[in-house]
Amino acid sequence: MRIVESVRSAIDSGYLSIGDKLPTNRELSSFLKVDRSTVARAYLELSRLGLIDSQVGRGTYVSAKGKPADAPWQYSRTAVKTGAEAGSKVDSKLDWNGRYSRYVDGLSGLINRLPHYGEGDGISFAGGIPAQDFYPSAEFKKIVHSILDSESGDRMFDYSPFNGEPALRQSVINHLGAKGMTVKADELLILSGSQQGIDLVANLLIDPGDAVIVEEPTYFWAISNFKARQARLMGCSHDEEGINLSEVENALRRHAPKFIYVMPNNQNPTGLTMSLNRRRALIDLCERFNTPILEDDYSGDLCYEGEPLPSLYSLSQGKDLVMYQGTFSKALCPGVRLGWLAGPPHVLEKLSFAKRTSDLATNTMAQVILNEFLLRGLYQEHLARVNSVYKRRRDAMVASLEKEFKSFPGVEFLVPTGGLFLWVSLPSGLSNRELLNFARNEKVVFSPGDLCFCEGDGLNYLRLCFIQNDEATTRSGIARLAGAYKKYLDYVNATASGLASESPRASNHVLI
Amino acid sequence: MRIVESVRSAIDSGYLSIGDKLPTNRELSSFLKVDRSTVARAYLELSRLGLIDSQVGRGTYVSAKGKPADAPWQYSRTAVKTGAEAGSKVDSKLDWNGRYSRYVDGLSGLINRLPHYGEGDGISFAGGIPAQDFYPSAEFKKIVHSILDSESGDRMFDYSPFNGEPALRQSVINHLGAKGMTVKADELLILSGSQQGIDLVANLLIDPGDAVIVEEPTYFWAISNFKARQARLMGCSHDEEGINLSEVENALRRHAPKFIYVMPNNQNPTGLTMSLNRRRALIDLCERFNTPILEDDYSGDLCYEGEPLPSLYSLSQGKDLVMYQGTFSKALCPGVRLGWLAGPPHVLEKLSFAKRTSDLATNTMAQVILNEFLLRGLYQEHLARVNSVYKRRRDAMVASLEKEFKSFPGVEFLVPTGGLFLWVSLPSGLSNRELLNFARNEKVVFSPGDLCFCEGDGLNYLRLCFIQNDEATTRSGIARLAGAYKKYLDYVNATASGLASESPRASNHVLI
Repeated sequence: MRIVESVRSAIDSGYLSIGDKLPTNRELSSFLKVDRSTVARAYLELSRLGLIDSQVGRGTYVSAKGKPADAPWQYSRTAVKTGAEAGSKVDSKLDWNGRYSRYVDGLSGLINRLPHYGEGDGISFAGGIPAQDFYPSAEFKKIVHSILDSESGDRMFDYSPFNGEPALRQSVINHLGAKGMTVKADELLILSGSQQGIDLVANLLIDPGDAVIVEEPTYFWAISNFKARQARLMGCSHDEEGINLSEVENALRRHAPKFIYVMPNNQNPTGLTMSLNRRRALIDLCERFNTPILEDDYSGDLCYEGEPLPSLYSLSQGKDLVMYQGTFSKALCPGVRLGWLAGPPHVLEKLSFAKRTSDLATNTMAQVILNEFLLRGLYQEHLARVNSVYKRRRDAMVASLEKEFKSFPGVEFLVPTGGLFLWVSLPSGLSNRELLNFARNEKVVFSPGDLCFCEGDGLNYLRLCFIQNDEATTRSGIARLAGAYKKYLDYVNATASGLASESPRASNHVLI
Repeated sequence: MRIVESVRSAIDSGYLSIGDKLPTNRELSSFLKVDRSTVARAYLELSRLGLIDSQVGRGTYVSAKGKPADAPWQYSRTAVKTGAEAGSKVDSKLDWNGRYSRYVDGLSGLINRLPHYGEGDGISFAGGIPAQDFYPSAEFKKIVHSILDSESGDRMFDYSPFNGEPALRQSVINHLGAKGMTVKADELLILSGSQQGIDLVANLLIDPGDAVIVEEPTYFWAISNFKARQARLMGCSHDEEGINLSEVENALRRHAPKFIYVMPNNQNPTGLTMSLNRRRALIDLCERFNTPILEDDYSGDLCYEGEPLPSLYSLSQGKDLVMYQGTFSKALCPGVRLGWLAGPPHVLEKLSFAKRTSDLATNTMAQVILNEFLLRGLYQEHLARVNSVYKRRRDAMVASLEKEFKSFPGVEFLVPTGGLFLWVSLPSGLSNRELLNFARNEKVVFSPGDLCFCEGDGLNYLRLCFIQNDEATTRSGIARLAGAYKKYLDYVNATASGLASESPRASNHVLI
């Protein structure tokens, strides 16, 4: 039953696709240390369920019948029929599947990698959402009032200029200035959230088949955006100082990538902050190979130890090399959906036109309100408060992990100096997806780390968001996670020693 | 001087590109009915300015030196250097131009077609902005108040689900229901403005070289979005009932287009509303050729005569054929940047994932506020009010045009039954761009109609937005426009009869 369940879940989650070959009976029985008749019975059951297809002399394959009829992303890329041919058919339904673009091809499979979370999941360390307790509700209310009472109140209902509200642009420039960055008026574009920066840069630079260097692991929605455009992703690993430059140089030399996408501060998902030396060396390398950098500073304002390091943008001033994007979603609140992109004016001019082409303009209300929030100095006050709270929450999670997991060898993590995320590795061979099923039973969830790998590797990693829950909830959640881990290990050991045990089923809750 | 100015302006605006051949001296002097020595002197001056290059025996060409060094969209599509090659170069600057994608290619040239408007332009009939006088300022203030005072006030600072705030989704479904449309929960996606619907559908369906059928003229930002993806645009003309079906059938038969983009209500820019018969026939045709439709109902709520006709979406219910999008930007206010897209669930599922990939989620604040506005029935009240005002404004513009232009033969327009736009044609051979320069001098501006043609034809059309200004301002603006037109005609006649006259220079104001 465990074999049946594993194969079914691998098909459901997209790890196995139609036509994939399964191991032979002999290979699987030897690997799982079970009797060959057990594998045979499992394969028979899978075949009966229509999930696999055994062909004498060819092997066992995942079968077309295995996917439910309404499975997303299941389509064939047959050519669109010519007009004349189509014109002669009268009663057939439209073949949408034959019409989808390569963009859809690029996304295909990725949606199946997203876990489904539900209401009953208990404590969540998944996602990347700031603590709701610190949303600027009272301040925003006052601001909306004063804006709507003012002469220029109607301004917030109008289109904003395509590159952003002038007043907010100036406020963001001032904010960046306070961080030691020099950004001129024609070097800044307001974004409808920083995901849009990724989207615009991808539009600007990626043609199908182009290479792009990313850190690996990296941000899932950057992977999906670049894959939608059929980029070849060159994943480069990290050491404790940041992305490995020998791998970067190798990729630059061999693949002439269009650009490199990095998060030097509190990298998502590892939490690593790139050292100053590594930043300088990365710039030198990219300059040498004439390769632009998209620097994603999604959480630079959340800094718990020491001083923030200078951005790649600042360190490369005058080199025409770096596009720098940031957001207010993580440090303030995601509902405003506002970010910014700074870069060389001649590049921003093209990005601005691409932005108009994709959404005309960014929400004016949010821009006007956020600008007033910045003008009143409330953002700095807010940062001071959340940084001290989030630091304590990080410390609580670190202490809990050390306490609850000390009896489990091979569970490791680094302590991040800022940001939201703590990256945990399990001994290799263990599966975060299986652990997630046990964890759900204990009412705690996390983000499976394989989402952050270009091809779905990294099954033994978990990403935990530590800013969302208060310290007591965090301690309780980590204790539950350790309980789930214990049960998972018991299950693995029992299975290895041949004892039957029931694995929890994957949840089918709605996607959130 | 007029020849010099015309060529310079044609180069500036992108009508002439580097390498384009100019007419010979003999051709131009005969066409303009001026002396050949005049043309020779003009070409000499253009050559002196570095704008053209005469080569004996080959002819006269627009020269590379003609474009200013910082001209937008000027780049070569040279291959990106290989890593090894690039690595050996140390002090050269990054070659951005060699890196841009085909998306940038597709946009190239389009930006130069946008006119520049400035503060001093006076009365504006350009753009497509509703009347600021009716922005829901007071109502929004009350709503924000009550939301922030309520238990769930913090909700507006959070991420919204990727397909939109559940409450707003329901309100939009109710709104569409009141218009006789049946939309189920899994058939609706909230958009960050309806331009995003165009963007997502383009991502979903267009690969480079794919054909797309559009009405011609059509919406400029749809043209630019589809061109960015290197679609081949099949423009089909209109008659008074709507798009010409013989042209559509011809394009369907020959080019197997991926989809057809239409605005059945108050088409932008013509203001035409497609008849019920034409709607039914269009659906039949698209069904016969299995070709999906993107129906853009950007202004369906602005209806001044009779009852709104059923949408293509409603008329094709059950046929899996139509994606239907709408927006609150035109009837309410553009600052909320909210729209919706309805369509078959299996298609929406892919569009939703594409949306997450491009901007993660739509602004929550705007969604929560708009939902409350809809729940309180304020949108219907608002529509009743603006529809009666806008109808009067339309009538004022129609009456003014009839009065002011009655002495000018060949100036024609249709009276739209709803929406924002009035489409005026001048006698062919006249140029809206030249008229715009004269109009600026009279302190009135409009949108040049060639923007709405796929390849920049339609130079003798103007688009006038009639909802933005009150009746007195409209009358005054149309009188100014007629004054400008008179001066332009005098200038044309003077030039034709060989008299020198000074043409106003194109403005170089900031783009708005």
